[in-house]
Amino acid sequence: MTLTVFGDSTSGNCLKVKWILDLLEIDYQWTEIDVRSGETRQAPFLTLNPSGQVPAVRLADGRTLAQSNAILTYFGEGTRLIPKDKFDRARMFEWLFWEQYSHEPYIAVRRFQLAYLKKRPEDLSPHLKERGDAALARMETGLENREWLAGTDLSLADIALAAYTRMAGDGGFELADYPRVCAWVDRVEAALGLDASSRRCVPA
Amino acid sequence: MTLTVFGDSTSGNCLKVKWILDLLEIDYQWTEIDVRSGETRQAPFLTLNPSGQVPAVRLADGRTLAQSNAILTYFGEGTRLIPKDKFDRARMFEWLFWEQYSHEPYIAVRRFQLAYLKKRPEDLSPHLKERGDAALARMETGLENREWLAGTDLSLADIALAAYTRMAGDGGFELADYPRVCAWVDRVEAALGLDASSRRCVPA
Repeated sequence: MTLTVFGDSTSGNCLKVKWILDLLEIDYQWTEIDVRSGETRQAPFLTLNPSGQVPAVRLADGRTLAQSNAILTYFGEGTRLIPKDKFDRARMFEWLFWEQYSHEPYIAVRRFQLAYLKKRPEDLSPHLKERGDAALARMETGLENREWLAGTDLSLADIALAAYTRMAGDGGFELADYPRVCAWVDRVEAALGLDASSRRCVPA
Repeated sequence: MTLTVFGDSTSGNCLKVKWILDLLEIDYQWTEIDVRSGETRQAPFLTLNPSGQVPAVRLADGRTLAQSNAILTYFGEGTRLIPKDKFDRARMFEWLFWEQYSHEPYIAVRRFQLAYLKKRPEDLSPHLKERGDAALARMETGLENREWLAGTDLSLADIALAAYTRMAGDGGFELADYPRVCAWVDRVEAALGLDASSRRCVPA
């Protein structure tokens, strides 16, 4: 059985999985799942992931895994995408957990509300904008004198954080206000080999 | 310099760190930080963790780490608390990331609102209760025919998930409605060596 990724290609969480597999040249099949259709909350998707979330992967042996950052960790193990230094590796995990708790729930959610559900900014909780901006400011601090979030090269932390950071503009955030973040997005996109049409952040 | 944990002892996220250090018999100093006083949002705490969240640890060499599950991973590396099997390890990480995204924001937050901010249940968003119950139901499914969440022994996933699950009653959740979860809480508390007065869930 071929490795299969079940993902919605408009989701940053799902793109993370595509990126790491492409980067590591691992063969896979992509099965598109439309989150907005409610498909993830119904059988048969729930047999793949009882939590009803994309992405989920079905490994060659038929077992399934979910949670984008856990999937990154699974495929990243033993590769250059996880720092060899114990502290750098811990910092990478710090960013990975922070991303799911303090970044995605604001930046990705506001983007989804505006760009996909077509809500008006004034109808959204100001909390989303405030916390999203706080997340971008936190990254700006974290990138002071650093090219990558953890260690000295591209790691899973950069892949995970770039996913929604690069699309923050769709959520009404001004990436240009965070120049280090903007330059870092460009660096990560280049490291991932994204083609020019996919590049989202052009540093000043 | 001694390893120092900066934590609020009423916080499940902070207890995770205490538990793993006690279990692994690692010496540390505990510095109590009162989250409700606003201390985490001010210097000098922000120099320890610019994200303004507890727990944070200062290692013997002075470097600092944050995010409870990243701290668990740091101290768990190379111990029996991380499964040796690659897939079991991936499942452990799946639970760790799920905990921060789909469990803590509902179960811990509802507990905080009710037990600490003394809000009335009718003043809280019904969303918190619905999603919290969904999280407990997800764990009930995950524990079918299993003693531990990942692999065949206590792992970081059990430590992380037990932290707030065992206190779900304070958040207005009925743990008794989830018998496998309840029995598992008891199992984890026993494995952690918590004394009788700390035990939170007595299975029927």
